[in-house]
Parts: sequence; structure tokens; C-alpha cells
Amino acid sequence: MTKKIQVCFNTNQFVKYSNNNQTIVVIVDILRATTVISTAFENGIKAIIPVKSLEETLKYKNFKNHILAAERNTLPIEGFDYGNSPFHYINANINGKTLVLTTTNGTKAIHLAKNHKVITASFLNIDAVHSFLIKQNTNIIILCSGWKGLFNLEDTIFAGALAKKILKNKKFDSNCDSLNAAVDLYSIAKNNLFQYLENSSYRKRNKSKEIIKDTHFCLNPTITSEIIPIFREGKLVKI
Amino acid sequence: MTKKIQVCFNTNQFVKYSNNNQTIVVIVDILRATTVISTAFENGIKAIIPVKSLEETLKYKNFKNHILAAERNTLPIEGFDYGNSPFHYINANINGKTLVLTTTNGTKAIHLAKNHKVITASFLNIDAVHSFLIKQNTNIIILCSGWKGLFNLEDTIFAGALAKKILKNKKFDSNCDSLNAAVDLYSIAKNNLFQYLENSSYRKRNKSKEIIKDTHFCLNPTITSEIIPIFREGKLVKI
Repeated sequence: MTKKIQVCFNTNQFVKYSNNNQTIVVIVDILRATTVISTAFENGIKAIIPVKSLEETLKYKNFKNHILAAERNTLPIEGFDYGNSPFHYINANINGKTLVLTTTNGTKAIHLAKNHKVITASFLNIDAVHSFLIKQNTNIIILCSGWKGLFNLEDTIFAGALAKKILKNKKFDSNCDSLNAAVDLYSIAKNNLFQYLENSSYRKRNKSKEIIKDTHFCLNPTITSEIIPIFREGKLVKI
Repeated sequence: MTKKIQVCFNTNQFVKYSNNNQTIVVIVDILRATTVISTAFENGIKAIIPVKSLEETLKYKNFKNHILAAERNTLPIEGFDYGNSPFHYINANINGKTLVLTTTNGTKAIHLAKNHKVITASFLNIDAVHSFLIKQNTNIIILCSGWKGLFNLEDTIFAGALAKKILKNKKFDSNCDSLNAAVDLYSIAKNNLFQYLENSSYRKRNKSKEIIKDTHFCLNPTITSEIIPIFREGKLVKI
């Protein structure tokens, strides 16, 4: 029997897709949480604790070998070691440490799906995620974190890219209009993802040099990752 | 000051877009409720009462000059005069009558938005709706009825077609990723809307000859309409 693949455009809609704990949920927050997660693992982080609030993050302040990172509305938060930029984790002193991370959308999406098998995906590990999913014999929901419960373009085009790869394998089938839309939008965007997002809400929201540099990296990362971060007992760890 | 235009992909998300009663909400249920509404008005219906439940519809059973129509899950309901096919209203004895209509998605969307100024749109009256909206000095939300709270492609491509027309007028501006997506999906679909929807959930859901005929009509209607149905005191009437 074929397995079903769906794309959920935002966290507010997830309740309509969520079905049973046999489904794998792939969390996508391309700008920037799931890209940061891939980058941090690739640079030696041992585990990532995604937390929902700033207050909860601060509880880990004096934990040995823990580093704290926070972001709200694209901006870093004063008093935290790191922010939500992938560059904070490259050539950084993070080897073997645990990252406690809270972001506007992505970390909340992970918690929302936690009754399922949850992994995270980015353009760094898209090929690894694809290979992993093909090997599993389960239904898949690609959950776009979106922006505060709304649809966003950047997560959608990533979902389209991943869904398109997976559907080349005949084990998988789809009857999902949002998946069709994501695949079509990716087909328009793929030749220049950065340019495609020029009129997106994200790029209009923050036009700082740092965000532009981050956006280029998140869409066309200069490193790849074979690591599949999986959520187990409150932590993202390597599968 | 420019006015804002947004596209809301489904009724479940509307609470995140709804802002104030000065906004015009354009209800879209291309397959088939808002197409039926345009067709019925164009063929002489005086008013349409959109109701949420079958039970509520039946309360109008013995009302003079009222006709009752119902649909659930694309199928007509036994015991009702009419269904949700536009062809039921062409060359029918409906002149001057009031239609009481309940459908799976579209009539519910009208009620959801009723604290705003609500009009309905279809490919029959898209040009008239466009001209009307350009003359108004208000923000616009195009509300796709979707399918049971989920995104659907047919309403989205219509929303894209209408939004694209409106944004040619510099009075209007947008910062809405779902609008961008709708416009892009319409650009892929526009040369053959019927074919574009081949893999859509709607077309997979019901492949009867009647639905296929209706779908062709809804996407490429053989009649146009200058009528703007507006929701006033519980009824859709001509503006």
C-alpha cells in the first residue's frame, strides 16, 4: 500500500493534518530555525533543546555545557549567548555542547507535533532527509512553521522541493492541494530562490545586512549535512 | 494612503485576517457555491439566503416564492428543489424568487465574515467585482472558502486572478505571502484552468459527468454577470 504525503502550510492548520503517531512530521522553518539546527549539528553541537518561551530558556542559564539562543521577530535577544543566525554556529566553540533554542515559529512547531515522530529539515540536509524518508514505511506530513500561524513562502517552497523529490518514489502518493501548490511554487522559484522571495513578507520585514546574508545561506547553503535531527525526550539529537 | 489587499486561504484562518468592519470581504467558492450564486442572480433570482444547516434550510419549506437548494460533499440532498449545480438555475423557473442555499463550504464562509461588508465573486462576475472594488476606498480580504477548513487550489487560483487585476491599480498594495502564492499559481494555471486542476482534491473527489460539466462551466463560464451579490440583513441581494 502506498504511503501518504501531505504539506501543512502553518501550525494553526496542523490539527487538521495530525492523525496518528505513526506519521513522521518534518518540521520546516527555513528562515531560520531549522537551518540553524542543521548548521549547529554540523558544527559539533551534541543536542538541541527547543523551548517555547524566553523564560524557559533562561532556566538552563547555569547548566554545564549548555549555550542559550533566542530570537523574536527576526531579532536576537539581549542577554543570550547566541541568536538565530546560522553564522553564529560556524567556527564557534560549540563542540559537544547542548544548545537551548527558542525562536518565533520553528521551535513552537516542534512542540506542536511532538506526539509524532518529529525530524527537522533544511536545504543543508534535504538530500539526507529525502533518503531517510524513502527508507521509512510511514505517512509523512511536512509541517511549515509559517509566520505566527500564517502561510509563508519560504517554508512552502522548501516543502515543495522536498515533496517533489519524495513523490518520484512510487511508494508515496498524495491527495493534498497544498502539496500540489507547494510543488508548483517551488517550480517557479527554483532557479533563484532568493530573488523569488523578493516580495515575500519575510524579506520586507527585516532588510538588515545580517538577515540578507543569512537568507542567502539558508536558501543556498555552502555546506551540506547528512545529519537528521530527531526529537526524543525533549531534545533534538542525531538520528 | 494605499489600501491593503490580502488573500485568506481558508475559513479556519479568517480570524487572523479579519480586522474591522470597514474591510470588504470577497467570498470565493468557485466549485461551486459562488458560481451558483452568480448564475442564479443572472437568471432572475431576487435574493439568496445562505444558511448553514440543512435543518435551517427546511424552515423555509412552505415560504411563498422560496426555493430550497442543498449540497453536502459535492452531492445534492434528497428532498430539496435544487442542488449546487449552476445548470439547475439556467432556463429554470426562478424569476423573482428567493433561493435558500446551504453548501459544504461557501455559505458558511459568508456567515463567518458577516461583520464585514461581504460580496461574492466567481468567474462570471470577476470583471464587475474588480471594477466595484477599485471604486471603493477600503481594504480587501479575498476569502477562499476552501474545503472543510483546508486550502484548495480552485479558490486560490481565482483569488490570484482577482488580486492580480486589482494590484494593477496603484491605490492598492499588499504584504501578504498567500496573495503572492495565489497570483503565482494563477499564472501557472491560467492557460488551462481545467487541466491545471486535474490533480486537485476536488477533481479526485467526484468524477461524475455532472461535476465535470459543472467544473468546466465554473472555470470558463459561457455567461458573464455584472451583478455584485452583497450580503445585507441575512440575504444576498444585488448591490
